Amino acid sequence: MAKKALNVGLVGYGFMGRTHSNAFLQAPRFFDLPYQPVLKAVCARNADRVKGFAENWGYQSIETDWRALVQRSDIDLIDIASPNDTHAEIAVAAAKAGKMVLCEKPLGRTAAEGKTMVDAVESAKSPNMVWYNYRRVPALALLKDLLEEGRFGRIFHYRSQFLQDWTISEDLPQGGEGLWRLDSSVAGSGVTGDLLAHNIDMALWLNGSLTEVAAMTETFIKERKHSLTNKVEPVGIDDASSFIGRFQNGSMALFEATRYARGHKALFTLEINGERASARWDLHDLHRLEFFDHRDESRLRGWKSIHITDGDHPYMKQWWVPGLQIGYEHTFIHQVADFLQAVGEKREAAPTFKEGLAVDYVTDAVLKSAKTKQWETIPLV
Amino acid sequence: MAKKALNVGLVGYGFMGRTHSNAFLQAPRFFDLPYQPVLKAVCARNADRVKGFAENWGYQSIETDWRALVQRSDIDLIDIASPNDTHAEIAVAAAKAGKMVLCEKPLGRTAAEGKTMVDAVESAKSPNMVWYNYRRVPALALLKDLLEEGRFGRIFHYRSQFLQDWTISEDLPQGGEGLWRLDSSVAGSGVTGDLLAHNIDMALWLNGSLTEVAAMTETFIKERKHSLTNKVEPVGIDDASSFIGRFQNGSMALFEATRYARGHKALFTLEINGERASARWDLHDLHRLEFFDHRDESRLRGWKSIHITDGDHPYMKQWWVPGLQIGYEHTFIHQVADFLQAVGEKREAAPTFKEGLAVDYVTDAVLKSAKTKQWETIPLV
Amino acid sequence: MAKKALNVGLVGYGFMGRTHSNAFLQAPRFFDLPYQPVLKAVCARNADRVKGFAENWGYQSIETDWRALVQRSDIDLIDIASPNDTHAEIAVAAAKAGKMVLCEKPLGRTAAEGKTMVDAVESAKSPNMVWYNYRRVPALALLKDLLEEGRFGRIFHYRSQFLQDWTISEDLPQGGEGLWRLDSSVAGSGVTGDLLAHNIDMALWLNGSLTEVAAMTETFIKERKHSLTNKVEPVGIDDASSFIGRFQNGSMALFEATRYARGHKALFTLEINGERASARWDLHDLHRLEFFDHRDESRLRGWKSIHITDGDHPYMKQWWVPGLQIGYEHTFIHQVADFLQAVGEKREAAPTFKEGLAVDYVTDAVLKSAKTKQWETIPLV
Amino acid sequence: MAKKALNVGLVGYGFMGRTHSNAFLQAPRFFDLPYQPVLKAVCARNADRVKGFAENWGYQSIETDWRALVQRSDIDLIDIASPNDTHAEIAVAAAKAGKMVLCEKPLGRTAAEGKTMVDAVESAKSPNMVWYNYRRVPALALLKDLLEEGRFGRIFHYRSQFLQDWTISEDLPQGGEGLWRLDSSVAGSGVTGDLLAHNIDMALWLNGSLTEVAAMTETFIKERKHSLTNKVEPVGIDDASSFIGRFQNGSMALFEATRYARGHKALFTLEINGERASARWDLHDLHRLEFFDHRDESRLRGWKSIHITDGDHPYMKQWWVPGLQIGYEHTFIHQVADFLQAVGEKREAAPTFKEGLAVDYVTDAVLKSAKTKQWETIPLV
Repeated sequence: MAKKALNVGLVGYGFMGRTHSNAFLQAPRFFDLPYQPVLKAVCARNADRVKGFAENWGYQSIETDWRALVQRSDIDLIDIASPNDTHAEIAVAAAKAGKMVLCEKPLGRTAAEGKTMVDAVESAKSPNMVWYNYRRVPALALLKDLLEEGRFGRIFHYRSQFLQDWTISEDLPQGGEGLWRLDSSVAGSGVTGDLLAHNIDMALWLNGSLTEVAAMTETFIKERKHSLTNKVEPVGIDDASSFIGRFQNGSMALFEATRYARGHKALFTLEINGERASARWDLHDLHRLEFFDHRDESRLRGWKSIHITDGDHPYMKQWWVPGLQIGYEHTFIHQVADFLQAVGEKREAAPTFKEGLAVDYVTDAVLKSAKTKQWETIPLV
Repeated sequence: MAKKALNVGLVGYGFMGRTHSNAFLQAPRFFDLPYQPVLKAVCARNADRVKGFAENWGYQSIETDWRALVQRSDIDLIDIASPNDTHAEIAVAAAKAGKMVLCEKPLGRTAAEGKTMVDAVESAKSPNMVWYNYRRVPALALLKDLLEEGRFGRIFHYRSQFLQDWTISEDLPQGGEGLWRLDSSVAGSGVTGDLLAHNIDMALWLNGSLTEVAAMTETFIKERKHSLTNKVEPVGIDDASSFIGRFQNGSMALFEATRYARGHKALFTLEINGERASARWDLHDLHRLEFFDHRDESRLRGWKSIHITDGDHPYMKQWWVPGLQIGYEHTFIHQVADFLQAVGEKREAAPTFKEGLAVDYVTDAVLKSAKTKQWETIPLV
Repeated sequence: MAKKALNVGLVGYGFMGRTHSNAFLQAPRFFDLPYQPVLKAVCARNADRVKGFAENWGYQSIETDWRALVQRSDIDLIDIASPNDTHAEIAVAAAKAGKMVLCEKPLGRTAAEGKTMVDAVESAKSPNMVWYNYRRVPALALLKDLLEEGRFGRIFHYRSQFLQDWTISEDLPQGGEGLWRLDSSVAGSGVTGDLLAHNIDMALWLNGSLTEVAAMTETFIKERKHSLTNKVEPVGIDDASSFIGRFQNGSMALFEATRYARGHKALFTLEINGERASARWDLHDLHRLEFFDHRDESRLRGWKSIHITDGDHPYMKQWWVPGLQIGYEHTFIHQVADFLQAVGEKREAAPTFKEGLAVDYVTDAVLKSAKTKQWETIPLV
Repeated sequence: MAKKALNVGLVGYGFMGRTHSNAFLQAPRFFDLPYQPVLKAVCARNADRVKGFAENWGYQSIETDWRALVQRSDIDLIDIASPNDTHAEIAVAAAKAGKMVLCEKPLGRTAAEGKTMVDAVESAKSPNMVWYNYRRVPALALLKDLLEEGRFGRIFHYRSQFLQDWTISEDLPQGGEGLWRLDSSVAGSGVTGDLLAHNIDMALWLNGSLTEVAAMTETFIKERKHSLTNKVEPVGIDDASSFIGRFQNGSMALFEATRYARGHKALFTLEINGERASARWDLHDLHRLEFFDHRDESRLRGWKSIHITDGDHPYMKQWWVPGLQIGYEHTFIHQVADFLQAVGEKREAAPTFKEGLAVDYVTDAVLKSAKTKQWETIPLV
């Protein structure tokens, strides 16, 4: 039986443009899906470079103006993988044009931006999804299952970090194509929106709503040359961000993201401590889940390292054989697979824009608390 | 050459009474010291039990009233290993009586108490020391050396945890000999004074003063039967305590202590991230130091696990051969050795009461911030 | 510039058919290659199933007789991913037909078979390669570089294991499509050819020739039902295989492969100890290399865990950003990329059939020694 | 109640003299024992140095001739901690003199020597024990319990290593007080008797008798200056030793000991794979046991790291609180405690001389097989 084609129009050809393109190509080879994604068009301002990208990944056509892309009748889905300052405008236009909309995280640079995007897709009834890809790490999907089965009992603590070290050098400029994440006007914020947002989305999914936070941020290097102006300019982003807080379920929150933790490349960690069980995970060994079960026989209790590569682990039946790990890009492949399944079944695909907005509310509160030095409450979505 | 005897009078025969007694006996067998500690007397209220303790450890006599002990002319040093509510009174009396004074941590239940103790030993010019024993973990003594050699450059982050899980059961009572740590009137506070104080002392030693904190505490189980009254009573202690803060050197602080982290028995951890190097350590494998050196050749950079058992590692030449680990009690043995060396050389032995008071100022601020929900500044000692 | 097409004809659609197909599709998206592989045809006996496989992976046509495939003029390269008993016949025919030939490991069921294959590709001057895919693990490619740079000095020890546990149940049958690896007539041997061959190829590459071995094998479960005959039949394969031996460079060998090591899924390990450095690696965390450098400052020596995800690590510049791991299938992608590069530059692509034959000589000697209970010498290729 | 005194006469004041002395002093402080060891006398040839040793450890007297010590009527127990070439003569004399006899491992330099020692203690009915101290590692005592409870089912594999790196330098001399382990006339053999003997004793205890072995040894550095003659002389010891073999229970053996494994200080490892469970342990983190239980729920199976510091772990109730590790010397303390308990109950204390002899038979067979290049069978004791 031939699958229905689903025509994709991608905006952006950076790091995320690559992960998404790969996911659209790989998902149907490993998962049995109701739709076959077709790489119809890719859009970016630099015509030469977008052409090279299209050739490499097999896009059938190119655009250099996203407005044109959004209006094309042969496009079913707009996938936004361009810098944060473009998310809201493109997403709103795409929804209005009747497209499905996928958007890289964070949803908006602020919750205000995010809210316009939620309103747009809800008005248009557009299938939508935010690329918080780590929900599709098999180890974390398993953890979600374990939590839902009630194995942890009352939750006491949830803590999470995202530690990097790539911006420690003072010589690194800010802004421009490769470094827009350091330019606050484009990125919206620094590590709070770029890294901490991942920690928060994961936490909301696994442990429910956050109700209040007390936060601090720091910009360790105050001035950097700007790639576009070639002048030394003040740095507007936060280099590091941390907070204490409370979840609605009564558990305590401890969060931190930084690009100044020497020795850590992309160390996204999380740990959850419940009455009867605890678990922890980190991105540097994403194929493992550490699990502690208090119901084990007393003298044999310990932290178990589960190698998440078996056929009864989430997503893994589709891959290789036990013991053979998958990698980072597979999280995007799984997300495409889940999205297409959901579309086929006329269900929402998580995380929806609305869930992305919930993250924006938390990051807004974090940034505000860091300024006011007060506890800030989080609006519920 | 015969060593000079130094007559010890110990107050308290609990867990800490055992670690101290063992340390006094072992130190001179493994270290070349100017004094030979003599276990002259041990004091506690229960005469039968203190007699058994004295026999086991070889104390020459017993007392049941610490006031009597403090006045004995054959005692050179009073070692306070009794519950927190007795520290100040005994220490002040001992100093007045012209004794050297060692005191279990925390120094006082509050900084106010601690201040009276500092004043007393300073007035009396009594050699004094607080048993923040973890400073004598060889791995951490090495870390201190590495920091002083300037290998880390500018420090960006310091984080530390103390995670336990032994009070999760609601059936555990509070108060009494074995469980006075759960009785706020005796202990002063919960994990803040019991566990977090260790994290803080270590941080002040390794990374310098903390200037301000925003904290939260939680008491997960609000009522417990009291062992002495046999009635269910409100729990006054904090079960968990966490804070964000700033060090004087500009680095960010992230601290947490809890007795509700299922799966962790005594997981004291710390990590420090500097411009050129990072290090981390934890108590569950106290004989290892994890070290990352950014000056390593780029493609060979990684976290190194150093097995701290070599002759050129602090304290280790006195023990066995490379590869053979020491344990928890050795930290106390090292502390006795260092104290006796310092006394022999008429130097202060760290951590002094004054350093213990600095910790009390931080724990006071943590507890206050948790109540006020405001940032609190830390007085410098 | 349009790349030259290179038409692939695949034989076999099992586990290895999938890894190879994926590699041909992915390699040109991530590497800049002189050829574009085209999935021209796939061949297997079951027409229905091969059709499904062709649809899934995008093969343009199917065959059910490999002889027909080998004779097709639109095929440039025959890739043999069918069971071991077919390797020699297909490879020889493909070489005679003037095709490039890739062959799954082990090359032959015996060195005698392997020798006919080497002769065939050498007579025909066919580009050829054996799929010992683990040579393309970035961590191991880095280790190879470090060895060639002379960082290890004189080598004393090389040890390697391949531990699995999937055949422990007595209820598992032998033979048939999914379980031909348990049928000695098809597989040639058990773990010796299936697993130990990987250990040996890696060792010969990293540490040079093996000169002599003393081995033992064991068949723990002596009878199993055969999937094809449905009768209980003697098990002809070795369930476990181990040997001690010597390398030409004077170092000692210690090798082991088994499918009866409960708790290990696919734990391929290796460790090499040299005068000045040591390294170890395992497949369960294939993106890490453990490295010990004796030239480090004495008190800071330790095993370093290098997260092989940086741009200056072999192959990794083509993938994501530091900290983001790749997985198992990437080894095949790298091997395709290297092969196509080599073809473009008219070089041999390692491991050649001749190198595959060298492994066969060792596995033959291992199996012989296990029977004779004598030390056996290894012929040099 | 006053304990009975048990007067100890120690021979040797080296590394093992220290561990034994410490054990005699510490055991009664932490364990409730029927005897109080009294350090009556220590004996060694160098009068000055033995005097210093006696002062440090509190021995009441010294001897410089072990024959005199053995004849003293105030000595109940002779503890042999002198080099291997003295074990047999002293032990036989001590038994004849009616003393209890403890002997450092290996029992004899050869099984022939060991046999005379067994005969002597059995004739004299002397309580006896060999200091294979690692049987008293709490993690391994727990493993022994788990095996005896039948949790592992049929055993398939047992492997064990002892890896060191301290003799790699060619400049290290052989022989003399500190380096007699490198002098074959004193030590009997190299790593086979010094290190591999530990692996073997542990294996025989945990997994039963070995029936046959095929072994190899190597002397990497063929000549070294001798400390006593000051001349370069051939090295008679084995620098590395490895073997494959079979246990009586049908499981396969893989063993290795070396002093040329760069990066490993004293890495004694073992792993056992059974039908239903597996376990592994190593000396560098001796307070942990890794355990895999196949009966765990399928998707939650993994290797568990058990921190052996709880009150229900062997020996640990006598020490501190959960989470606080013990070290190397505690194994000797436990062995003294067990020995005194056994004496009090008129039971044998394992490992007896007879068990020590069983190890000697295996090391003899290993050394013989390495010479003959044949499989050698092991006599049962």
